[in-house]
Parts: sequence; structure tokens; C-alpha cells
Amino acid sequence: MKIIELNETVTASNDRDAEALRLQLRRAGTLLVNVMSSPGSGKTTLISRLIRDLPMLRIGVMEADIESDVDAKRIEALGAAAIQVHTSGMCHMDAGMTAAAWEALERKDLDLIFLENVGNLICPAEYDTGAAKNLMLLSVPEGDDKPLKYPLMFQKSDALVITKTDALPYFNFDPEQCAERARKLNPAIRIFPVSAKTGEGMEELAHWIIGQIQSLKYNCL
Amino acid sequence: MKIIELNETVTASNDRDAEALRLQLRRAGTLLVNVMSSPGSGKTTLISRLIRDLPMLRIGVMEADIESDVDAKRIEALGAAAIQVHTSGMCHMDAGMTAAAWEALERKDLDLIFLENVGNLICPAEYDTGAAKNLMLLSVPEGDDKPLKYPLMFQKSDALVITKTDALPYFNFDPEQCAERARKLNPAIRIFPVSAKTGEGMEELAHWIIGQIQSLKYNCL
Repeated sequence: MKIIELNETVTASNDRDAEALRLQLRRAGTLLVNVMSSPGSGKTTLISRLIRDLPMLRIGVMEADIESDVDAKRIEALGAAAIQVHTSGMCHMDAGMTAAAWEALERKDLDLIFLENVGNLICPAEYDTGAAKNLMLLSVPEGDDKPLKYPLMFQKSDALVITKTDALPYFNFDPEQCAERARKLNPAIRIFPVSAKTGEGMEELAHWIIGQIQSLKYNCL
Repeated sequence: MKIIELNETVTASNDRDAEALRLQLRRAGTLLVNVMSSPGSGKTTLISRLIRDLPMLRIGVMEADIESDVDAKRIEALGAAAIQVHTSGMCHMDAGMTAAAWEALERKDLDLIFLENVGNLICPAEYDTGAAKNLMLLSVPEGDDKPLKYPLMFQKSDALVITKTDALPYFNFDPEQCAERARKLNPAIRIFPVSAKTGEGMEELAHWIIGQIQSLKYNCL
């Protein structure tokens, strides 16, 4: 079997914008968490569950989608500050777009903002959004081979949330093998197997997020 | 709730290359089917099943991935002609890349080639690969709201294969609502609910593919 390599340089660099936004957010005392995954991995469901599990926090959500506002409406119904961002076909958020969304949210008093990125396991990993932490989801039905095929996302993420663990009996997914493959790409990655449906594993994830907010406020991130 | 629109023009146009490749493939009597979906929707599993279900056809597969060759190895083990394409981080295939892969496959005598595109529900829909037919997968665990969020993929596809229907009892997925949403975007789209695991619905899909090959050979596509 032959393997051919096709090259194209990814050009866009927005690192300076991202650093500036990160500094502004730190000064505001707001932890921005960039949530990335394939379509349908359960980003909105996970964020909704965390909003309910963390009532002591002032939480905002930026929902990035190519079209529709179904996700932002779900979030708003929970009482959190929400803004819908339409990317006009763009497959990812960058730092400039994220800064514009933060301005439009008009809330500088939040402890935590989730940026729900466009559903895409590739492009969002290439763009620093200015978030303090990158969190990726991989759902059980997607398969445990994804670290082999989409390595950059695993390399760029501070935490991997394995979602829909309640579906483990119905799919051929080995959490240990998945964790091993992810750690081979990123030895420091934190891994949280969760089911937002049953609540299993959610407490550990919520604690991790609270710890990140405390680190940010005490300036140790 | 506010909605902000962020614009960026998608620049790349490769329509001329795609038309040229489509003509060459037609002259060779080869139906090229571009298979697109999110990561983990079951593209390789579906293609593997079709190879087994269509032993009378000469089939080739072009496996496009950012990294790894796990999919091409699975296909090759079935005895089909396979080539692995590494896109070097690119989130889609275009016509030039597809033409290069076809050359590298070195098989001009095939009835059918599946191009398994990069796992991504957004970018591949923006690039004409030169394929005669576009086929997209949406798996039951991904959710029936995907036509609302990723409309272009549904608009560009000739057929929608709803995969993993054996998982319907475990997920909140309404096939009728999904079909209605897809047809609102693309009234002509053919919809095939299948389970590659149990074989349910596979015969209808196989018949559709055979019909497309006959149309191509009799020059009616």
C-alpha cells in the first residue's frame, strides 16, 4: 500500500491577539474555557450540566455555530448569560472572533465563560482563541482510535472529557486504550470520563474547573 | 439574546480541476463517490461492508486522513485496492489532491472508487473533489439536529446515510425529524437509514450505488 503526502501551509497566525485577550480576561478575573469536539459529542449537554452543578459561579457561554441558535437558547433557558456567534461558514473560532464575542456578551463580572467552539475535531485546534484552558470532548460512539487520526486536538487540550460513558456497553470503546493513546501525544493531559446523563464523573470535572478558577484569581495559571 | 455575525470569504475555488477529473473518471467508466461525515460516524465500517456486499464490482478506496493508516489497512485486508492520503493537517480533500490520489492508485479499470474524506462535517462540503456523487453519513449518536447546524453538507450531498441505527434505542434521535430537516435543505436528497453492524438497510444503499454505476456507464449521470 502506498502513502502519499499532500502539503499545504496553514497560514493564519493570531497568537498576539490571543495573548492580549488572555491578559484582559485574567485582569477581569474570568476563566475562559475553550470547549472543542466533533459535532454531536455532547458539548452543549456537558456545559448545561456544569451550569446546573456549579450554581455558586457566575457563568457565561459563547455559542459558536455556522448557523442556528438552538444551543444558545438551551443555555439561556438555564439562566446563564449566553451569546450566539455565527461564523458564516468558518470552521473554527480565532482570537479576534472570541474577543468580539466577549465584548458583545457585555459581562465583565463573570467567574467562568465557556466558549463552545464550532463542532470540528480539526480546525479549532489550529487557532489560539485566547482561552486560559482548552477542553476537548470525545464521545464513546466516536471510537477510541481518534487520537491516532486527529493528534493536534489532543496535543492542544489541557483536558480530555470522554463523554457518553453510559453508552459504553453498546460500543466497542476501550477507555484505557484511548487514555494511553491521548497521553502518548500529551503526557500532561487530564482525562475525565463522564456521563452528563447519569452524572457519573461530573464531580471530578467540576472540581477541576473550580481549581482552575482559583488558580486564575490567585494569579498562578 | 444577541446574535453577532462574523464574516470571512472562503477563497479557494477548484471547480475547473474538479470538472476535468470528473470527465476523466467518466471516460474510465469509474464512479467516484465522495464519502463525508464527522469523525467516528462509521465511514470506514460502511465502506468495508459495501465492499463485502458488492463482490461483483472492482472497487478501490482512497483513504484521506491527517495522520495514521489504520483505515487503509482495514480496507486492504478486504482485498480492495487502497491508498492512504495524508493531508498534512488539511481538513478536507480538494480536486487536485483527489486527482493525485487517483494517479497514485494506478488503477484505471475500477467500477467504483470510494474517497473517504477527512472526518469533518464542515470543510469537505466546501470543495468539489471531482466525484460524481457525494454521500454523507450522520450517525445516530450525533443527534438529529445536525442539519440545523451544518446545512452546507446536507445541501451538497446526493445521499444521506443515517448510520448506527442499531443504537436508536439508546439515543434520543428521531429519524423522521432528521429526514424532514435534511429535505428542507435539499429536497432531492436520498436518505438511507442503515446499520452496518446488523446489515439493516444496506441492500437499498447497495442498489442505489449499482444504479449510479449503470447511469455513469450508460452516460446518463
